[in-house]
Amino acid sequence: MEIKPYERIVNYYETDKMGIVHHSNYIRYFEEARLDFMRQIGCGAFEMEKEGVIIPNVDAYARYRRVLRFEDRFSVTVRPIEFTGVKMKFEYEIVSGSELCCDGYTTHCFVNGAMKPIILKHSHPDLFKRISEAFDK
Amino acid sequence: MEIKPYERIVNYYETDKMGIVHHSNYIRYFEEARLDFMRQIGCGAFEMEKEGVIIPNVDAYARYRRVLRFEDRFSVTVRPIEFTGVKMKFEYEIVSGSELCCDGYTTHCFVNGAMKPIILKHSHPDLFKRISEAFDK
Amino acid sequence: MEIKPYERIVNYYETDKMGIVHHSNYIRYFEEARLDFMRQIGCGAFEMEKEGVIIPNVDAYARYRRVLRFEDRFSVTVRPIEFTGVKMKFEYEIVSGSELCCDGYTTHCFVNGAMKPIILKHSHPDLFKRISEAFDK
Amino acid sequence: MEIKPYERIVNYYETDKMGIVHHSNYIRYFEEARLDFMRQIGCGAFEMEKEGVIIPNVDAYARYRRVLRFEDRFSVTVRPIEFTGVKMKFEYEIVSGSELCCDGYTTHCFVNGAMKPIILKHSHPDLFKRISEAFDK
Repeated sequence: MEIKPYERIVNYYETDKMGIVHHSNYIRYFEEARLDFMRQIGCGAFEMEKEGVIIPNVDAYARYRRVLRFEDRFSVTVRPIEFTGVKMKFEYEIVSGSELCCDGYTTHCFVNGAMKPIILKHSHPDLFKRISEAFDK
Repeated sequence: MEIKPYERIVNYYETDKMGIVHHSNYIRYFEEARLDFMRQIGCGAFEMEKEGVIIPNVDAYARYRRVLRFEDRFSVTVRPIEFTGVKMKFEYEIVSGSELCCDGYTTHCFVNGAMKPIILKHSHPDLFKRISEAFDK
Repeated sequence: MEIKPYERIVNYYETDKMGIVHHSNYIRYFEEARLDFMRQIGCGAFEMEKEGVIIPNVDAYARYRRVLRFEDRFSVTVRPIEFTGVKMKFEYEIVSGSELCCDGYTTHCFVNGAMKPIILKHSHPDLFKRISEAFDK
Repeated sequence: MEIKPYERIVNYYETDKMGIVHHSNYIRYFEEARLDFMRQIGCGAFEMEKEGVIIPNVDAYARYRRVLRFEDRFSVTVRPIEFTGVKMKFEYEIVSGSELCCDGYTTHCFVNGAMKPIILKHSHPDLFKRISEAFDK
């Protein structure tokens, strides 16, 4: 399966008084692209949460390289880096035209509805297998 | 009981490329001030939700009169207008210095955890009484 | 020219602890769709601002009818209602599946870079004509 | 001079459908606290920008340790780590009650109105001195 990169244009309300996208929004772009990736591999957050699996952030890092401005079209490439069933890590590249604007990573864990950590391999072997396969490619 | 007006300064990330507060944020300022008001009368959203009462918006209106800019200090006055136990309405005035920057209103209903409408007078007579008293002043 | 309705899905970060889209975000959806409409008629905010025309909100109203949730696909129909060259008004309908979720309106004026009102018919007759034609259809 | 830590409570619209503060907002809390710190040392973003100095983010990192929920009171401690006149780095700790909820850092550079890098020591020796003194404590 080919993963399609996530693409859209910058919204007006995402800019700040510098005239550029506020830096906090890149963390949201990472999330949009990650959840789109997860949807494409059949593990969308909606389905995961129906199965009682919530995937909060453990950390997030963004490095800002070129500014994005209102109406700029950008794409976000998501690279699955590590998946152990306890932890999951993604890298991101946000590109507009041929320019790298921002890159970074996020790490995640798996918790149940009570926000208690779960070991996906034991609690949800099917989901574990599906995510493993997507990360192995 | 004297209700204290809600006060704070404008955050950087609330501005947009016009250099002013993005108009959607005034709706958030209304909410901040309304929830502060509700807290002051002993009906904070946290307590309400613990009792199974959720208070979504039915509508929201804002009229923009003067721009707010980064670091501007502003206060929001909340006026409780109407409370029937099925519906609740507030009016707002956002003032900075001596200038009216924005006014508007929001209307709300009461629902349970399943998002079904409830009649507060029957389902939660204590809350009904407490809110009624605050609106009668 | 046929105007295409604006469409996308709900982002995770647009939901709140009720599990639904936070009501302030519908004001942002209105903006996304309005700016998309303006782009389609050749009057995108980017081009307008290059010509020294800024279009702030005078007011905004939203009526919430059905909740939108994470990953819900919705479309926003923008109806140009009134354009005088001093004032511009739009109505909106946000629909998901066959359900009306939110409707409302926004009113706008025209200002220059110094945030002073301008009369578009005199200051920018070409823009005035282009917008007039789009509103007349 | 004693720097006061930055304090406030969580807003409703900052929560997401997990019922916790959305992780992107901690980056905004860092900014709120950093700009408050800069204000306290006499270098508020408003004054800086009047002098033609804009301070964009070069990077940002947040590690999430405990969730914050609606109405939680939290404080943000800002630790100035490095200042060279070309680069500036801060560390942050967000604490609620006695619990560390999030820590992280941000790095910044200095640019002029045209978003071109400046060397603060040469372009704005007074500002350079004031910030240096605050970082040396």
